[in-house]
Amino acid sequence: MPLKKTIAIDLGGTNIKIALLDHNLKIWSKSVLSTRNFFSKAGLIAQIADSVKTVISENNLKKTEINGVGIGLPGPIDAKNGIVHFLPNIPGWKEVKLKLILEHKIGLPVFLDNDAKLMALAEYKKGAAKGSRNALCLTLGTGVGAGLIINGEIFRGFTNATGEIGHLPINEYGPKCNCGGQACLEAYIGNNAILKEAKSKFHKQISLEELSYLANKGDKKAADIWKNVGRRLGLALSAVVNLLSPDCIVIGGGVANAGKILFKEVKKTILERAMRVQARHVKILSAALGSDAGLFGAAILVNQGVEA
Amino acid sequence: MPLKKTIAIDLGGTNIKIALLDHNLKIWSKSVLSTRNFFSKAGLIAQIADSVKTVISENNLKKTEINGVGIGLPGPIDAKNGIVHFLPNIPGWKEVKLKLILEHKIGLPVFLDNDAKLMALAEYKKGAAKGSRNALCLTLGTGVGAGLIINGEIFRGFTNATGEIGHLPINEYGPKCNCGGQACLEAYIGNNAILKEAKSKFHKQISLEELSYLANKGDKKAADIWKNVGRRLGLALSAVVNLLSPDCIVIGGGVANAGKILFKEVKKTILERAMRVQARHVKILSAALGSDAGLFGAAILVNQGVEA
Repeated sequence: MPLKKTIAIDLGGTNIKIALLDHNLKIWSKSVLSTRNFFSKAGLIAQIADSVKTVISENNLKKTEINGVGIGLPGPIDAKNGIVHFLPNIPGWKEVKLKLILEHKIGLPVFLDNDAKLMALAEYKKGAAKGSRNALCLTLGTGVGAGLIINGEIFRGFTNATGEIGHLPINEYGPKCNCGGQACLEAYIGNNAILKEAKSKFHKQISLEELSYLANKGDKKAADIWKNVGRRLGLALSAVVNLLSPDCIVIGGGVANAGKILFKEVKKTILERAMRVQARHVKILSAALGSDAGLFGAAILVNQGVEA
Repeated sequence: MPLKKTIAIDLGGTNIKIALLDHNLKIWSKSVLSTRNFFSKAGLIAQIADSVKTVISENNLKKTEINGVGIGLPGPIDAKNGIVHFLPNIPGWKEVKLKLILEHKIGLPVFLDNDAKLMALAEYKKGAAKGSRNALCLTLGTGVGAGLIINGEIFRGFTNATGEIGHLPINEYGPKCNCGGQACLEAYIGNNAILKEAKSKFHKQISLEELSYLANKGDKKAADIWKNVGRRLGLALSAVVNLLSPDCIVIGGGVANAGKILFKEVKKTILERAMRVQARHVKILSAALGSDAGLFGAAILVNQGVEA
């Protein structure tokens, strides 16, 4: 009997990616739907179930040839019990027993986890953090999230709410943050904060892609915005470096596309602000798996869950 | 044959404590020497060796009745190889193979570790953090250090330089720190920073004990100093809470004697600045073992080392 395949889903604030992977994590098919089309929680759940059935039929598979469905979601998840606590950027989700609901609808084992944790799991198992024992893998976007690998495993703590690098305060006082705190890293370097700063400096709407393009072409105003992002990110990472002395820090997500300018400033800040031994040990790396990291992580989650 | 006893040594910037403990961690004898009497590294090492011999003879023991000597030191240590990298507050120590030197002089197994890590190990095994799986145990003093318990074990990372809570930056820019960074927590709430602030507010030298006494008597100036210490400590701890979601945080050391005022402000700040789920989960506790925590930790280190 051939090895089973896995269905992986990456649910974001703007779209849902659904893929079929084999046991070697090779992607056999992939499709993308807009999350915005589903106004209700029930509509979105029905669409996930339908998409899974479509993937199975379009690939001429039987359910018995699938080992399970893994889903990454943008919010705090009880991974053990398969419950979505809430989704900050998708209204209407609160304490949803998604694993139970979907297993009933689909008839296959379902595993859930936070998207940043799955990205970290993927980068650790087959990406930039491979071979490291202790690592922090960040995703920069509207939110600034991370997954923490400690002693070769995703570190969840008792609450499963770990790795919240976006909510490390970088000043005693500062801008209000969505989390209820203030002066959190995300309030300075989340996409919205960067776009706002860019608008005020350029006196017009300007996209992150344009901002990266301008900075790389030598525009000083654009470069300064990215340098500030890198310096503040480096500052929060110095706290992680001094506390945990990780082997590597992997940076991915949209904002990371600013590339060299950003990474240079992050590294410089860590050398300036973190302690010598830890700062010299840690490697600052670009994520290796790109935008499919979440799908790989979801597939790995299923494989681990089925084996356990 | 009766169970063997252990010799534990806690080497501080101002004094050395030496104790004899049994397998139940009961202290049978304890003595204190001033570190200041030993101007040279060689003198201090000779004194440690002599003290061990004195403890053995004064208690009418034979070497075969001792399982080993555990030593906590105030600085970065390579615990695996028994090397002292350096001691920030005791000049002349750099890459000292103390384990090797002492085993040669004493003829007993010797184990070394950082004092904050040993305090954490003791609080975890028999103090305030007992029963927690993930904990941060802090010592407030001239330095602000901590030991991190992750999944029930001291977390060392690759470098063994972990738990450096005193060097979490709490502002983008701020006072210079001994570590080479700036705006580190220790630069605001280390003993010297507090004494300096007290002197400038009271226009005279004032000790930490007096400052605590005045604050507890209702003196507003003194209370405000402790509130600032608590708020800044709470801010740095909010970063740890958001990153690691520990079960408890144990606070000990001289400054912790300010008591209620300090703990109240720490708790308040964590509830204000950390994320809801993690902030509600974490317990903020006072250290249970007092100033002997380092000795207990050193004895536990020997017992673990001998068993391993």
